[in-house]
Amino acid sequence: MAVYTHLGAEQLAELIAQYDVGTLLSAKGIAEGVSNSNWLIETTGNNGAGARFILTMYERRIELGDLPYFLGLLDHLSNRGCPVPRTIHDRTGASFHMHDGKALALIEFLPGVSPTRPEPDQALSVGATLARMHLASDGFALSRANTMGFADNLALLEKCGEAGLASIHKDLPAMLAPARSAARLDLSSLPQAQIHADLFPDNVLMLGSQVTGLIDFYFACTGAMALDLATTHAAWGFDPASNSYREDCGSAIIRGYESVRPLTDAERALLPEIAKGATLRFVASRAEDWLDTPDDALVTRKDPMQFVSRWRFYDEFGAQVFA
Amino acid sequence: MAVYTHLGAEQLAELIAQYDVGTLLSAKGIAEGVSNSNWLIETTGNNGAGARFILTMYERRIELGDLPYFLGLLDHLSNRGCPVPRTIHDRTGASFHMHDGKALALIEFLPGVSPTRPEPDQALSVGATLARMHLASDGFALSRANTMGFADNLALLEKCGEAGLASIHKDLPAMLAPARSAARLDLSSLPQAQIHADLFPDNVLMLGSQVTGLIDFYFACTGAMALDLATTHAAWGFDPASNSYREDCGSAIIRGYESVRPLTDAERALLPEIAKGATLRFVASRAEDWLDTPDDALVTRKDPMQFVSRWRFYDEFGAQVFA
Repeated sequence: MAVYTHLGAEQLAELIAQYDVGTLLSAKGIAEGVSNSNWLIETTGNNGAGARFILTMYERRIELGDLPYFLGLLDHLSNRGCPVPRTIHDRTGASFHMHDGKALALIEFLPGVSPTRPEPDQALSVGATLARMHLASDGFALSRANTMGFADNLALLEKCGEAGLASIHKDLPAMLAPARSAARLDLSSLPQAQIHADLFPDNVLMLGSQVTGLIDFYFACTGAMALDLATTHAAWGFDPASNSYREDCGSAIIRGYESVRPLTDAERALLPEIAKGATLRFVASRAEDWLDTPDDALVTRKDPMQFVSRWRFYDEFGAQVFA
Repeated sequence: MAVYTHLGAEQLAELIAQYDVGTLLSAKGIAEGVSNSNWLIETTGNNGAGARFILTMYERRIELGDLPYFLGLLDHLSNRGCPVPRTIHDRTGASFHMHDGKALALIEFLPGVSPTRPEPDQALSVGATLARMHLASDGFALSRANTMGFADNLALLEKCGEAGLASIHKDLPAMLAPARSAARLDLSSLPQAQIHADLFPDNVLMLGSQVTGLIDFYFACTGAMALDLATTHAAWGFDPASNSYREDCGSAIIRGYESVRPLTDAERALLPEIAKGATLRFVASRAEDWLDTPDDALVTRKDPMQFVSRWRFYDEFGAQVFA
């Protein structure tokens, strides 16, 4: 959560001059994004009425080759009426360009705030918006493999090793066995789409119960829609403080989703296992981050056990939840 | 440069509801301020046209007892047409209130960007705006002592100690003698006002050569106007990359200032010594920060020698510069 690169006012003005958005009025580095630097930019707009944008500099973890997929998907979904920010193309038509070896993109600013204690009516709205996004992604020309799939989760946990996992928490090594089971799950026969794959509350902008923006598509990929639903369920269906299941929010995610796109029988049957696999992604990535981050580092490490607890919930109650 | 405190969307909405500014539309933590957390806030405005604000949470280094001075000065100057952000008072009339033991203030958002390579026409404008601010501060009811005066600089350097200073750079201990001389300077007979005392380019918002905002008044105090001019001269008159004197910018600061408020003979005569004292403030505070910051910390330490070099410039050429 930082701005990693300093861009001076004069550099920003030059960058903005490459777009048909008027002249620079204001630029504030914003404390969002862990793998990129972001500025909230205000310009005079091309009709003088003022306009706002997010300027994103991709710092790490992003493959340049993935940018046409990520940014193109924003444009595709935005053109189809989904609440996602569209990419502003420069005067040459490019959706991103390079500055000192790093890619930069100018992205539409959307209003809204991310709920930290989601309510059921918000979860309902997010479920419906997710389904609309899945349907709207139809016809998008590009595809991208999921780099955080079930097999990748297993590989990450194996890289941490039993001893490494045990050094974080005594119960973590026991997650290797379920990760092996999940890695054998084949989702390729389920309905596919472009999926967000990381739709936590902080990646959703809302005004009241209305979704004004789905943002941060940098894990988006081509995959099973049921996986996206399961990840969203795992992200929205638990109380952030107590980590206990919130039936009202969890069921609202599914109800909202199905109000737009009913699940197939095959999806419904597999969802308990998919949800368990979805939680393992965060167990694995957090365990890796934990071992990579020195004890005395200033950043807060996220506890992988939070999602072990959610895995256990789905293991016990998944059949009921997705019945 | 970080947001130190997490405020959730619901907490922000509750905070904003205490002001007559409409409802919350957007909130982004911004990467500004070293001793406070800041959010760029958008609301519907009280006439529905939309409005923007900076919400500041004071984290450290600020004495609560100083807030009425800092925030009251913004209002006083803003009411007199100075380009400073006014404080938004809540429905009870308060300019700040407490949240979890920390003070919060809602402050007007001003457009503009801070120049990183100031040009002479910008320096001219800043000099004139500084003089206007000094004159406009007349009649402000409160006062505040300078906590970073010449005697404080000396005390800081003495706290670092000869050995500590030498561990940073072999030439630093030699600054103790000039700091002792500066501490004997008495500025109390020079014309006094409320002064900004830290008017570096990153505390000025500009559009082209127009000053749209003087910000970050958290070193403001009651003191000699010549000290503020000297500090501004030391901050704007040197090339940020090479650290060499830029006669065009330095002379523009003075010319701009005098276009609004001509210096007295007594000020002009003392300015070379005052400028040397002004540079010692940054030598002292940077030396202290350097010794307080571990070598492997993630923050960038500012080099005190940058201002030793500026001290040397004023020692040699100050009489010419302020002739």
